[in-house]
Amino acid sequence: MTSKIDIKKKVLSENDKIAQELRNIFADKKIFTINVVSSPGSGKTSLLEKTIQSLNDRLKIALVAGDVQTDNDANRLAKAGAKMVRPIITGGSCHLDAKMIQKSVETFDLDNVDLFIIENVGNLVCPSNYDLGEDMKVVLISTTEGDDKPLKYPSMFRRSTVMVVNKIDLLGMSDFELNKVKENALKINGQLRIFDTSCRTSEGLVTWFDWLEEQVNTKKNL
Amino acid sequence: MTSKIDIKKKVLSENDKIAQELRNIFADKKIFTINVVSSPGSGKTSLLEKTIQSLNDRLKIALVAGDVQTDNDANRLAKAGAKMVRPIITGGSCHLDAKMIQKSVETFDLDNVDLFIIENVGNLVCPSNYDLGEDMKVVLISTTEGDDKPLKYPSMFRRSTVMVVNKIDLLGMSDFELNKVKENALKINGQLRIFDTSCRTSEGLVTWFDWLEEQVNTKKNL
Repeated sequence: MTSKIDIKKKVLSENDKIAQELRNIFADKKIFTINVVSSPGSGKTSLLEKTIQSLNDRLKIALVAGDVQTDNDANRLAKAGAKMVRPIITGGSCHLDAKMIQKSVETFDLDNVDLFIIENVGNLVCPSNYDLGEDMKVVLISTTEGDDKPLKYPSMFRRSTVMVVNKIDLLGMSDFELNKVKENALKINGQLRIFDTSCRTSEGLVTWFDWLEEQVNTKKNL
Repeated sequence: MTSKIDIKKKVLSENDKIAQELRNIFADKKIFTINVVSSPGSGKTSLLEKTIQSLNDRLKIALVAGDVQTDNDANRLAKAGAKMVRPIITGGSCHLDAKMIQKSVETFDLDNVDLFIIENVGNLVCPSNYDLGEDMKVVLISTTEGDDKPLKYPSMFRRSTVMVVNKIDLLGMSDFELNKVKENALKINGQLRIFDTSCRTSEGLVTWFDWLEEQVNTKKNL
């Protein structure tokens, strides 16, 4: 009998195959790609709105916005000025997979893209298992969520390259300690690059924009 | 070939069978059971700490606290005064299932339990598919998460009986509108019983405690 685990392995290995095809395309076209993950409500869409507003003049940005239902996020990103943006409605699935990205990617003129941003479904568990061909995962955590989250959802923090601690304007409104969340995250993944931001007050955002632009340009000049 | 969908159906139907066995036990023992679900960081553990502190003298409360990793939540609940509490570490799984609950339930003296509380893994998607034999799901949403969440994660709000809007002390600190989240939630599920709470200032908590105690007593007197 085919077990649940066998099926899961098969699904993941099919996913990895497509993810590698995507990665080859992004390498060939020199497109820097990030997969943005977090709990629902950590501020992924807000961070991306600000990122588009800041970098839109200098970079050609394409985005896909994944959600279980609604295309609210894609609409918000379009309003923020995104010229190339597609919603992906998973219809129940708790994560995006490489096949969904492949279908969306086919609708973009990739010769005209420098930075490809994937906004994943709000979920700290499932998206960690699915490679989407990205250069890196960017995990957001907000200061209203609890500073032990990296320990409770270690896989996501282990597989991310960047952690953005968002809503730092709300520090002091709860027991959340900025040092503690960083200490916990670095226990799980000592290589994490960490940014502190507030999309509301704009604190810390420029450092993030500059770093991201640098990554895009580095890949372009490879 | 056995498809992914067939396997998923089989897993869910096995789960439903065990959930029904649990439901029969809870009916027989007259134990009122809630399955508490939300995003990571909405305040499930904080709400349950306060609930235990308030109702511990009048009700015999047993709890299980599910997490992908760590027994932090179970420890917090024990510190808050919970006499019967067990951690369930899912080790990667994005939800609790009925089998996990069954194993934990076997370790309690059920003749000595009035209220059984299940704190699910922090995830707004996967736990909605898994019946745990509970009388009702209680979904938390916090005012820092965005008022469109019921539309984006409709399954969870459709399958819940109660919605607790937590962190109302932080209203006004973001664009979140209390009326909007309620309107969105009621679009998905017009029967939702809604509570507004702040675990930090204790606003609204007594209404929740009283209502919960009433449900427990109603079941006890059936």
